[in-house]
Amino acid sequence: MSDAVPLVNDLFLRALRREPVERTPVWMMRQAGRYLPEYRAVRSGSNFLTMCRTPALAAEVTLQPIDLIGVDAAIIFSDILVVPEAMGCFLTLDEGVGPQFPTPIRSAAAVKGLRTIDPYTDLGYVLDALKLVKRELNGRVPLIGFAGAPWTLASYMVEGKGTKQFAIAKKMLFEQPAVAHDLLDRLANAVGEYCVAQVEAGAQAIQLFDSWAGALGPNEFREFALPYLARAAKIAKTAGAPVIVFAPGATWALDEIADATQADAIGVDWHIAPAQARKRLGNRAVAVQGNLDPCTLYAPIAEIERRTHAMLDEFGPIGHIANLGHGILPDISPAHAKAFVRAVQQHEWPTVSESEMIAAATATVGAQ
Amino acid sequence: MSDAVPLVNDLFLRALRREPVERTPVWMMRQAGRYLPEYRAVRSGSNFLTMCRTPALAAEVTLQPIDLIGVDAAIIFSDILVVPEAMGCFLTLDEGVGPQFPTPIRSAAAVKGLRTIDPYTDLGYVLDALKLVKRELNGRVPLIGFAGAPWTLASYMVEGKGTKQFAIAKKMLFEQPAVAHDLLDRLANAVGEYCVAQVEAGAQAIQLFDSWAGALGPNEFREFALPYLARAAKIAKTAGAPVIVFAPGATWALDEIADATQADAIGVDWHIAPAQARKRLGNRAVAVQGNLDPCTLYAPIAEIERRTHAMLDEFGPIGHIANLGHGILPDISPAHAKAFVRAVQQHEWPTVSESEMIAAATATVGAQ
Repeated sequence: MSDAVPLVNDLFLRALRREPVERTPVWMMRQAGRYLPEYRAVRSGSNFLTMCRTPALAAEVTLQPIDLIGVDAAIIFSDILVVPEAMGCFLTLDEGVGPQFPTPIRSAAAVKGLRTIDPYTDLGYVLDALKLVKRELNGRVPLIGFAGAPWTLASYMVEGKGTKQFAIAKKMLFEQPAVAHDLLDRLANAVGEYCVAQVEAGAQAIQLFDSWAGALGPNEFREFALPYLARAAKIAKTAGAPVIVFAPGATWALDEIADATQADAIGVDWHIAPAQARKRLGNRAVAVQGNLDPCTLYAPIAEIERRTHAMLDEFGPIGHIANLGHGILPDISPAHAKAFVRAVQQHEWPTVSESEMIAAATATVGAQ
Repeated sequence: MSDAVPLVNDLFLRALRREPVERTPVWMMRQAGRYLPEYRAVRSGSNFLTMCRTPALAAEVTLQPIDLIGVDAAIIFSDILVVPEAMGCFLTLDEGVGPQFPTPIRSAAAVKGLRTIDPYTDLGYVLDALKLVKRELNGRVPLIGFAGAPWTLASYMVEGKGTKQFAIAKKMLFEQPAVAHDLLDRLANAVGEYCVAQVEAGAQAIQLFDSWAGALGPNEFREFALPYLARAAKIAKTAGAPVIVFAPGATWALDEIADATQADAIGVDWHIAPAQARKRLGNRAVAVQGNLDPCTLYAPIAEIERRTHAMLDEFGPIGHIANLGHGILPDISPAHAKAFVRAVQQHEWPTVSESEMIAAATATVGAQ
């Protein structure tokens, strides 16, 4: 689709394409979240699911970190569990308990009973929120859509709620692998098509979150997570926008994820040093996104700055989108979040080779 | 110390020394646990902490998996939190809630208020249990003592209870690093000396559990976990028994852990393929222990056997102690646990080179 309003700040999209950039772009996972008093004010008048389902509220909190923190991309306020809900899993979200599916999916019959979704009608409220945000952003920064990856959604649907060990979901993989494959198959298509719909509604990039990738060992990751993540990513890519894949806890598989998904960027969690992540990806044509430990934002501001600069130096200037290595925590001070974003935006590269200077100069001209 | 009764089955100790063995030894983390009806019977009449503090009860459940499952080593029934408790942290353990320290350690003053322990008096009940088990084992299999590693204990003491993100404990690392170092320093000495006392009471090997190693990124692991784990391991080794170090979630650091701790064996969690773990350890003179995903025991028995044999083939016959890659889960059927143990004990090596045959023959003669 064509974007009527040209982007003022397209650093994020250019970094995704591994083009030279004047500076590294930055955003934060969960940037529209509880660490912001302005978010808590909206949240106090409404529950989380109502916020997701009300485009005006979702749009309002999506825009807050753009205005207040100055990040280089917006990500739509929503939840990964809207897809299972649209497939017919009744979802509850009580204060202090977290999201729950009171009727978990644990049998072949339960999987067969799931609906095939039409994202345009079933998840129209997210698409409406994207359109609204896109209009209100008016080209300031790009807008990211997102979805949960099949394994992560399946594990929630089977467990029925959050868990530390995922023993119930993993039990299905070992005890009833055919049922698990059927569930994952349906999810891969639903997630892929939902991402396409988000791009058509205005999302300029898509991030797939395989948040529970780390619950699987290598054999199970390769059998139950990666193929379905890859299929969802490939369907998403048919819409023409770049795709970022983030599979925290599976840093050992960064190279396999890049190969299988053909993603434009790979999210990197904080368990791995930036140089190691780059090394594991080798000379693949893929950007990286990450990876400051969110707990770093508890440190004094000078220390946040020091570590942010060190991270940027280690990732290097090309094909890197600065981010945290996980979502920002709810008790972080907005001043500390701002210090992180500002440190990225004011970073000076310690040494620049001649070829990099030429590349940077060309890029600056091209952007004007 | 000298062992009055010679061991009938010393496979575990020989594998720790990377000597040739007729077959790979096997035990399971949490093998004295809730998956056994016989354990639940003892547990129904007593609470967990009382079981830890009553040598006769601790000894009874320690011996159950030797008799019932046929593992090649016993590990004393206890809990890693007995050390913080001995240091003055009041510990509660309510059903369904898990262990808690109602007064968490979050300030310099709180750390300074901790007691220096004398393991011989403060933890005499564990030492008595070790002596009792040693007597009742009567040389059937070796006895393992254990302790939590400093970072893992510190994170519990600071959080006050179990957690997913360890944000409070990590906040201390970033906000008050000097306080964290003071706490870790005290813990390293306490843990090391407690391990020495366990060996003197009869433990023939020590396992250090850095269960929350995976909560730290590389920088923090190297600053706050590894040096203190290494010091505890080195103090433990002065008692003369082999030391196993298990730091789940830090598979990226297997080589660094081996170098820093000089452990005899490195525990391997299920996040990494056996061949990868061996590769990361290179030609270091260290044994490995692990690493079947505990959820594998949900699979049908034929599948448990297939995967166990595949794991053994991948680790190879020398310097490997078969184990799960994490504690056995409470809802596993004892028949499936037994199937795992039996599969290890009946494993036939697919191809044996001439030098390996000679080595095995020599070892068999030596053991008789």
